[in-house]
Formats: sequence, structure tokens, C-alpha cells
Amino acid sequence: MSHVTNKTIQRVYEILEGTTNDKITKSFQIFIITLIAVNVLVVIVETEESVLDEYGYLFTPFEVFSVIVFTVEYVGRILVYKLNPKYNNSKFGLARLLVSPMMLVDLAAILPFFLPFVVTDTRFIRIIRLLRLFRLFKLSRYSEPMQTLGIVFKSKAGDLAVAFFILFIVLIFASSLMYHAEHEAQPEVFSSIPASMWWGIVTLTTIGYGDVYPVTVPGKLIAAGVAVIGIAVYAIPTGIMASAFTEELRHKREQKNNTCPHCGKDISEK
Amino acid sequence: MSHVTNKTIQRVYEILEGTTNDKITKSFQIFIITLIAVNVLVVIVETEESVLDEYGYLFTPFEVFSVIVFTVEYVGRILVYKLNPKYNNSKFGLARLLVSPMMLVDLAAILPFFLPFVVTDTRFIRIIRLLRLFRLFKLSRYSEPMQTLGIVFKSKAGDLAVAFFILFIVLIFASSLMYHAEHEAQPEVFSSIPASMWWGIVTLTTIGYGDVYPVTVPGKLIAAGVAVIGIAVYAIPTGIMASAFTEELRHKREQKNNTCPHCGKDISEK
Amino acid sequence: MSHVTNKTIQRVYEILEGTTNDKITKSFQIFIITLIAVNVLVVIVETEESVLDEYGYLFTPFEVFSVIVFTVEYVGRILVYKLNPKYNNSKFGLARLLVSPMMLVDLAAILPFFLPFVVTDTRFIRIIRLLRLFRLFKLSRYSEPMQTLGIVFKSKAGDLAVAFFILFIVLIFASSLMYHAEHEAQPEVFSSIPASMWWGIVTLTTIGYGDVYPVTVPGKLIAAGVAVIGIAVYAIPTGIMASAFTEELRHKREQKNNTCPHCGKDISEK
Amino acid sequence: MSHVTNKTIQRVYEILEGTTNDKITKSFQIFIITLIAVNVLVVIVETEESVLDEYGYLFTPFEVFSVIVFTVEYVGRILVYKLNPKYNNSKFGLARLLVSPMMLVDLAAILPFFLPFVVTDTRFIRIIRLLRLFRLFKLSRYSEPMQTLGIVFKSKAGDLAVAFFILFIVLIFASSLMYHAEHEAQPEVFSSIPASMWWGIVTLTTIGYGDVYPVTVPGKLIAAGVAVIGIAVYAIPTGIMASAFTEELRHKREQKNNTCPHCGKDISEK
Repeated sequence: MSHVTNKTIQRVYEILEGTTNDKITKSFQIFIITLIAVNVLVVIVETEESVLDEYGYLFTPFEVFSVIVFTVEYVGRILVYKLNPKYNNSKFGLARLLVSPMMLVDLAAILPFFLPFVVTDTRFIRIIRLLRLFRLFKLSRYSEPMQTLGIVFKSKAGDLAVAFFILFIVLIFASSLMYHAEHEAQPEVFSSIPASMWWGIVTLTTIGYGDVYPVTVPGKLIAAGVAVIGIAVYAIPTGIMASAFTEELRHKREQKNNTCPHCGKDISEK
Repeated sequence: MSHVTNKTIQRVYEILEGTTNDKITKSFQIFIITLIAVNVLVVIVETEESVLDEYGYLFTPFEVFSVIVFTVEYVGRILVYKLNPKYNNSKFGLARLLVSPMMLVDLAAILPFFLPFVVTDTRFIRIIRLLRLFRLFKLSRYSEPMQTLGIVFKSKAGDLAVAFFILFIVLIFASSLMYHAEHEAQPEVFSSIPASMWWGIVTLTTIGYGDVYPVTVPGKLIAAGVAVIGIAVYAIPTGIMASAFTEELRHKREQKNNTCPHCGKDISEK
Repeated sequence: MSHVTNKTIQRVYEILEGTTNDKITKSFQIFIITLIAVNVLVVIVETEESVLDEYGYLFTPFEVFSVIVFTVEYVGRILVYKLNPKYNNSKFGLARLLVSPMMLVDLAAILPFFLPFVVTDTRFIRIIRLLRLFRLFKLSRYSEPMQTLGIVFKSKAGDLAVAFFILFIVLIFASSLMYHAEHEAQPEVFSSIPASMWWGIVTLTTIGYGDVYPVTVPGKLIAAGVAVIGIAVYAIPTGIMASAFTEELRHKREQKNNTCPHCGKDISEK
Repeated sequence: MSHVTNKTIQRVYEILEGTTNDKITKSFQIFIITLIAVNVLVVIVETEESVLDEYGYLFTPFEVFSVIVFTVEYVGRILVYKLNPKYNNSKFGLARLLVSPMMLVDLAAILPFFLPFVVTDTRFIRIIRLLRLFRLFKLSRYSEPMQTLGIVFKSKAGDLAVAFFILFIVLIFASSLMYHAEHEAQPEVFSSIPASMWWGIVTLTTIGYGDVYPVTVPGKLIAAGVAVIGIAVYAIPTGIMASAFTEELRHKREQKNNTCPHCGKDISEK
């Protein structure tokens, strides 16, 4: 590779990864974030008939433009992957890059456009269109809040798994009891235990839509017990998330205070 | 300006800002707080037809009286602004005073009365009347709890913004999924993604009015997942607020303990 | 007073206040607690027609028996009040005893029986009958959990007042906005701001019965904003209560560990 | 007993109690956990008619197989009980083993199969079939999350009892008041205080199905008060559970860090 190409690759890497703070990098990031935001907006509002009627003709060109940008970005990331120490020094570096969560999200963001050229089953295409929503997750690369949420989920994955497993056990038990109590009185609503689990979810999360509820005395007694005890159990993941998030935000703030605002390096070490 | 005028201005400033503890200042504050409270009460009860029929004739004179008092207060604050070190020593001090949040609230409290003389569009006037409700926020100047809430919101603004951004992402994702799952079965209810977001809000906050809920199996599965995970995410701002508020109340109590009850100065410093 | 009478008064005081641990005192306490519990049970089940039909003839004798016991207890407390250092040494000791919360509860527990002999207005009598429910609060004298709740409420009264004041402001503001947004579309449901406050309570507490909810787009937007922000504000008293209660329970446990199990005195002091 | 038998018993004990880490013990545990999971799955899906029609013929052989395995396990545990120091050295060791919670769960897991041979009352048999659900609790022996929940419930039993007692008092009081406020307007819904308690549970837990709610002004005022204060009280057990669970998980993690990964002994002591 020539020296010029190397320099270009280095520059592209800097811009894509945001390792520098110069104007072009900043502008690129703002451009991409805006593009993602507008894309998500389009996915949302194009389901509104009145919007589709009036502005529908704009959506196809915008989609083409977005896919070109996202494809260039995707291909760019592959081309410069060797500068990323995480993938360069390891075997199958490129393969590992391609299956990394962020690259899969990037792929899911452009795939919905290209797949219809290959597949022609309309039902499949509809699901593929839904994939465009994953463009939302492209934000994770650029948005600090999303990264914070990611870190929190990761660091508390074990605790949350334990909590959700317990919720699941409580849900199964509550729903089975309720099925046996209400099935005869409301055979349509509590038609089976899986159907009763919808009642369980709606009750244990305290949503209470009102589409399913017990009408017999034993059913009401079970619901009362489940509500009081179950809600306490459902508070567990809530508590884990809330405290982990607050902790992570404090951690981030402390880290920021130890960072030089000019060069971005840690000033607590010498 | 003569010496007497100066002294009057000084006195007016003291009373309006509550910098002294004398009887007239106290009385003025109680009078204004009572007037605000009664005003809010009137705005509320005048929508009740039976009240309007019986006491309606009292509302116009009371409104005139209130506006006179609030206008005098507003003009007074402008006249004495030079005694406020925050605005006196800076350029455009008066302009900066006029656009300060509290002065805008004060203006919004009297504007609904004067605007109908200028504008005549009835629809506009109705919205203007709603502005009277902002008199409620005049309380913030005099009410400690409201100030506490303000401080909490300000100090945690960054954390709350992060939390609300995440909520918004979860909301968009959940609502879009639900739209695709339920649109065919309930085209009226889940007519578009923005319409589905109403379901999202009602579900993620666990309100669950029961006007919108999924009826298909995929819809119920999505709702179950959204409920369990989403509610944990919705707990984040709740946790931030609750802990910040408790902290601020403790902080206030400690500050009060360090304050001389006679002169109001900090006794911890010498 | 003779020596024997004095000794009797001393004994009655010991039993009523539970200052000793002997068998008769214990038995009396268990008897009174059981009597209160059965009384509350009767108040509840006598509203069930089937129970009233079958066991109704038992309720009047039981009521007479209960009132006799509670009256003897009430009179007894008055007769021995001089032994209570809290009331003996102060002026108007008896008057102060009579208006103490617990003695008022004791009075409310027996009054429903005697008043019908004096008053004859049937509507008044019905409300008086409701007073029997206050027998429930007689438990506070004997039940540790109720005392704990009382201590928590008392110690956090200031914080809770602040929190509830803020809730009230949020409620007024949210309900007024919603009234203006929905009044035209649902004049029956959002007939006035006070009526809209029912929506506000049901929404901010996340109960969401489903009897009132917005149907217009502005109304839904307001509800969404209110739900997200308002629920965070409603979490404040919840947080205050939960943490104060946990703290108080820990405090109690520590106190108990420092108490001699034999004589009940503090073993941490010498 | 011969030496060989002794060794077999020792081996069976090791496998059943999981005191060693060898392959057979691991395999046995995975096999039992899978069998329990599939059993619970069958109990759930066999209530779904479409599943029953298609796969129903598989359920009886699977039930027979499961009961054989669980019976062998149950009998095995009885045969080797002498190796368990907890039961061997005490009088009535076998009796105490048989009434231990886990052995009762194990018995409940096989009883539904054998009882129909003895009892023939069909109504009784239906309830017996429900007992199969207790196989779910067999998981507690093998699942760490369930054990954690058990420890949390045990360690906070006192605090939770206090909290639930208070909830109960609030529930009784709120429901009685509501009954008196709404009985005349909605005699069908608020037919008695016990019936009103269904409203109380649905409201205090913020589920709010929408099947019962006040319609009169006094009823709505009571509901508002109950909602705001009562929900704060209902937050108490929620808070206790969430914090106890988080604490227990941290405790477990710390314990694990102090354990040798090879022999499983505590490395913090020497």
C-alpha cells in the first residue's frame, strides 16, 4: 500500500471511530446521528396514512440516500479494520469484526434494502422492512446514554438473570393456580395455562389492562396473594436496574473529572 | 433620586424579596401566597358549572383585584431591580431580569387579563385564559417545597435527560414492534406507530387504562417482554428522583442546623 | 384512699399499661387484642348478607359484651391516670389524657353504642356505626407494627408534607391541562377541573382503572408527559416511606439486642 | 451391611446431595433439572387443547416415566438418610427427614400419581392433579436463584410480616370506608366489605383492572386519599425485598470470591 493510501485509511479510521476531536470527525458524527434520527422518524411516521399520502414520494429517495451512506460507512469500517488493535492482532480478525454486535446492527441497517432483490416472498419482505428499525441501535455507537444502559445491563446480567428466573417461576405458579380457579367460570379468558400467563404478566407488572381478571372468590383470593407477594418479587429487577444505573452515572462523572479536557487523558495517573 | 425615594425603594425591595423578617414583609408574603392559592382555586372551581352559576358574579371583580395586585408586584420588581446585585452590576441587567424564569411566570400571570384588549380571536383568548394557571408557579418564589423540587430537577438534569432518552428509545422500539404485531388484528387501535406509542406509554408506566392492549399471541408476547424489561428501565428516573429528593431534604436540614435562628447566618463558619 | 385501694389501682395500672410481664397482664393483653380482632371481623362480615342471615342473632350480644369490656377499660384508664407520670404532674392532666389520640380512639370505640340512645336521626346513626371501625386503631396500643408505622409517619412528617404538597401541585397542573385538552371531546368525563383531578389521581398513581382516559391527540400527549414526569414525582413519598421504615426496623432490632431479655433494661449502659 | 452395599449407599448419597463434582453427579443433576422443567412444561401446555389433541398420547407414558424417576429419587433419599449428619445423629431422624420441606415437596411430586388408585372421588382427583405443579419446587434443591429467594424471604420474614400486617390494616380500613361510600350507588359491586377488599387490593397494588372503581364523589375522594397514602405503605415490602435481594446477591458473590475453585473450601481462613 502506498503512503498516501495509508494516510487516507488512517484518517477514515479516525473519523469512523471518533478517536480524534477535529471538525471533520465531529461533523461526520453529527451527520450520521442526524441521519439515523431522521431514518427512525421516517420508519415511525410512514405508518401514519396522512403523512404517507403527502410526503410518501420523498421516502424512497431518502431511503436510497440513507442506504448509500450506511453502506459506505459499513464498507469503510471493514476496509480500515486492521487499524483497530482489537481485531488486527488476532486470528480471524475480520470474521470476528463482522460478527461483533455493532457490525451486525450496521448490517441489519442496510440489509432490508438489498434483500428484496434476492428474496421475493412478500411476507418475508415485510419482516425485513421491520429490520430497518434496528437503525435505532446504530445510535449506540454514538450515544453515551445507550452505552451507559449497555454497560449496566452487562455488569448486572447475572443478577438480572437470577431475578428474571424467579419472576418466571412466580409467573408459572400464579398462572397455573389462576387457571384452575377461573377456567370453569371464564373458559374463554382463562382457556389454558399459557393464556392465563397473560393475566399473570398484566397483574404482576401492575399494568392491569382490565381485559382479564378473576371473577370467582377463589380466583380473587389467589390474585390478592399473588399481587401482594408477586409485586414485591417484581420489584427486585427494578431495584437492581435503578441502583446500577445511578452507580454507573456517578462512576462516569468521576471518570470525567479525572480527564484532561484538552487531550482526554487520565490526569489522576502521572 | 431623593433620599426618601431611595429609602422607599430599599423598603419595597426588602418586602418583595423577603430579605428581612419584619411583620410587614411576612404579612405581604402571606397575602400574596393566599392570593395565589385562591386564584388557583378559582381557576379550578369555575369550570364546575354549579359553582359558576352561584358564585360566578364574584369571579370578575376578584380577577380584576388579583391582576392589579400582581401587576403592582410585577412593576415593583422592575422598579427596584437595581438593588439586586445579580442584575445591577451586569450589562443589559433589566433585559436579563425580564427574561428570568420567575419574571416570565409573573408576566404570564397578568398577561391573560390584558391580551384580550389587543387580540380578539376567540380561540386565542381561550388558550390565553389557560395561562392563568401559571399563577400556580408564582408559588415557587415563596414555597420551599417547590424550590426543593426545582433544585432536585436542576442538579439531576443530566442524569434525568439520559434516563428519559433511554425511555424514549425503549418506547420507540416497543411501539414499533407492537404496531407490526397488532396492526392487522386491530387496525383501528394500532393504526400507526405514533398511535401505538400511546399503548407504549400506558404500558411502560404500568398505568394500563385498558383502552389499548394486544389481542394476538405475538402481540401479547411482545407486551410481556416489554413490560418486564421496560418497567425496569422506567424505574431509573423514578430512582434518580426519589434518592435526589431525599438527599436534598437531608442537605437542607443540615444547613438549617448550622444557621443562627436569630440572624439567619451560617454559624459553622467564624 | 385506703392502702388496699391504692394497691388495686397500682395493679390495674400495671395491667392496662402492660408495664409488668406477669401472666395476668399478658392474658389481659391477649384477651383485648383478640376481642378487637373479632370486633373488626364482625364489622367486616356483617356486611355480607349470607353471614348476617345465619349468624346475625349473635352480633347484638357480642356487641354488648364488647362495649362493656371496652367501657370498663376506658373508665379504668381514667381512674388510674394519676399513676401515669405523663399526666399526673401536669395541670389539666385528666383533660389532656382525655384528648390524647389513644383515648379518643378508645372513646370512638364505645361511642357508637351509646349515641343512638341520645340521637335519633337515622342518617347520623349510620355514620356513627361506621365509627366502630376505629376499634381497629385500638390495636395501635398493643401492636408493635402499628407503632412502628406511627413512628415512621411522625419522624418523616415534614418530608412527607413537602412531597405531598408537590404531588398536589403536579396534580392540579396536570388535571387543568387535561381538562382544557379533553373537555370538548368528552364533556361528560372531563366535565370540570375537579372531575379531571380524578383522572389525575388514577394516572399519577399508575392505577389506571380505565374509566377516564384521554382520547384526543393533545390529551394523549399531555397524559404521556404527565405520566413520565409525574410518576417520578410520585415516587418521592414512596421512597421516603420505604427507606424510613427499613431504618426504623433496623433501629428497633439494634435496640432489642441491647436489652436484657429478663428485666427488659438497656444493657449497653452500666 | 456388606462393604459393597456401604460403598453403594455412599455413592448414591454423593450423587443425590451433589456433595462431589464428578461427571455422574453432574449428569444426574442436569437430568433431574431437565426432567422437572419438561414436567412443568407438560403441566402447562396440556391445558392447551390443540397441544392435547396432537401430543396427548405422549403425556401418560412421560408421566409414568417421571413418577418412576422421582419415586426412585425419593426412596433413594430415604435409604441413604443415615449419611446425612443432620438426621443421623438425632432421635426420630427418619421422621424429621420425611417432614422436612424438601422431602414433602418430593412427596407431593409423586403423590398425584398414586392417590387415584386409593381415592376415587373425581373432584378430589382434580385437586390432586394440581399438586403436580409442586414439581416446580423440586427445582429449589438444584437452583441457586430459588435458594437465594428462599434465604431472602427467611432473613426478612420478620420485617415482611410487620409490613404485611400494616398493609392488611390499611386494606381493611380503606375497604370499609369505600363500602360505606359506594354501597348505595353500586350495590352489586360493593356488596359487602369483603367484596370491597377486592377493590382495595386492586387499588393499593396499583393494578387497577377497571372492574371495580368508585363513582360517587365521596368514594373518589376516599380512593384518592387511599391511593396516595396507601401506595406509599405498599412500597414498604417492595423496598424490603429489593434491598434484601441485592444484599444477598452481593454476599454470595463475596463468598464465591473467597472459595477455592478446585476444592470449594473457604480460602480466607487458614
